[in-house]
Amino acid sequence: MIKIIPIRGIPEVKYGDDVGEIIINACRREGIELQDNDIIVVSQVIVSKAEGNVVNLDDIIVSKHAEQLAALTGKDPRHVEVILRSSRKIVKVKGGVIITETKHGLVCANAGVDLSNVGEGKAALLPEDPDKSAQQIRNRIRDLTGLDVAVIICDTHGRPFRRGTINIAIGCSGLEPLWDRRGEKDLYGRELRSKVTCVADELASAAELVIGQADEGTPAAVIRGYRYE
Amino acid sequence: MIKIIPIRGIPEVKYGDDVGEIIINACRREGIELQDNDIIVVSQVIVSKAEGNVVNLDDIIVSKHAEQLAALTGKDPRHVEVILRSSRKIVKVKGGVIITETKHGLVCANAGVDLSNVGEGKAALLPEDPDKSAQQIRNRIRDLTGLDVAVIICDTHGRPFRRGTINIAIGCSGLEPLWDRRGEKDLYGRELRSKVTCVADELASAAELVIGQADEGTPAAVIRGYRYE
Repeated sequence: MIKIIPIRGIPEVKYGDDVGEIIINACRREGIELQDNDIIVVSQVIVSKAEGNVVNLDDIIVSKHAEQLAALTGKDPRHVEVILRSSRKIVKVKGGVIITETKHGLVCANAGVDLSNVGEGKAALLPEDPDKSAQQIRNRIRDLTGLDVAVIICDTHGRPFRRGTINIAIGCSGLEPLWDRRGEKDLYGRELRSKVTCVADELASAAELVIGQADEGTPAAVIRGYRYE
Repeated sequence: MIKIIPIRGIPEVKYGDDVGEIIINACRREGIELQDNDIIVVSQVIVSKAEGNVVNLDDIIVSKHAEQLAALTGKDPRHVEVILRSSRKIVKVKGGVIITETKHGLVCANAGVDLSNVGEGKAALLPEDPDKSAQQIRNRIRDLTGLDVAVIICDTHGRPFRRGTINIAIGCSGLEPLWDRRGEKDLYGRELRSKVTCVADELASAAELVIGQADEGTPAAVIRGYRYE
């Protein structure tokens, strides 16, 4: 059996905050006893805030290109400028949506630059290096508790050809994001040829069943009982 | 807290089998006491088998079009023929993969026609009407136990721009697949503009953390503790 436990009561995160310590403290207050091999799923927005990856839109100098794209999409030109700066290339512009490939290589709407849960007039960028962010939180949890957990940084993304957003992993530490099962056999002994499961994304989606996206203030969860490498 | 409980010990499913009854019996053997508001996630392959949605490849008469596509992709021409018959249109052909829009409107590789876990020389098609399949299983569980559960039919799919497959919902009954949160407020009182979460997909992904895809023989799971409408 797998358990998904919300980590409630995490206070508002500010620049310079120690996300690992905040999670540990919240777990203690909530009576969640962390264990080795737990997986901690953390919403990117608190990581971005702690790392100072938040910009004041008023400080943004808007380029000609951003102005044009803003006119085309109906978006705030400052928002568009931040999206462009976070991107490697534009994949598609349609309606009010700009799909880009981010500097990390993620293809997503608005380069993951979010105006929600960050305060009026501000935008939260994705963490610069989400795998590294995950590793730092993981190391911090190990330092504070002696426990070996895995950490996933998650964000909600839309999907081409599919309605609604789901939570995906944008970074992780302590577990292999892809489980390559090619070469294993099916029930009839037939070899699996294309079976690579993105367990990191499935764990992130599972976590969003308890992680709030509106005003719940539950930006993290513990997944327990999933055996990973 | 949410729990994901594997339903182990489900025997091989054959044409005409009663999936609802099979699930109930397996739960009883495993000591899983189903409750109102549990969500039962069922892998499409056992639904397709029970509904007889399996074809013998030797019986398939291959069209010219399928032959050409088979040559292009290196696939078995009979497999390609079944893919084409299950599809409304071809979205993309690249390498060994044929992406189509199925008759249901799903955009996925090979129209979801699977050669795994179905026996040599056979192919399992997606259920004809997965929402209806989910409803029948749900009704059957209600008839047998008096319990009101939700049912999701799931399948693993790849994603554009993203490595690895994840489990998604291809049909459901008893819960709203999309949770429309537009109009709700974020932590700072800012209105959410584009927040529609596909909880059905997140539940399906969560279930795959315990559902086996190779030779485990665990084609279903119970998710407990998720509050849905």
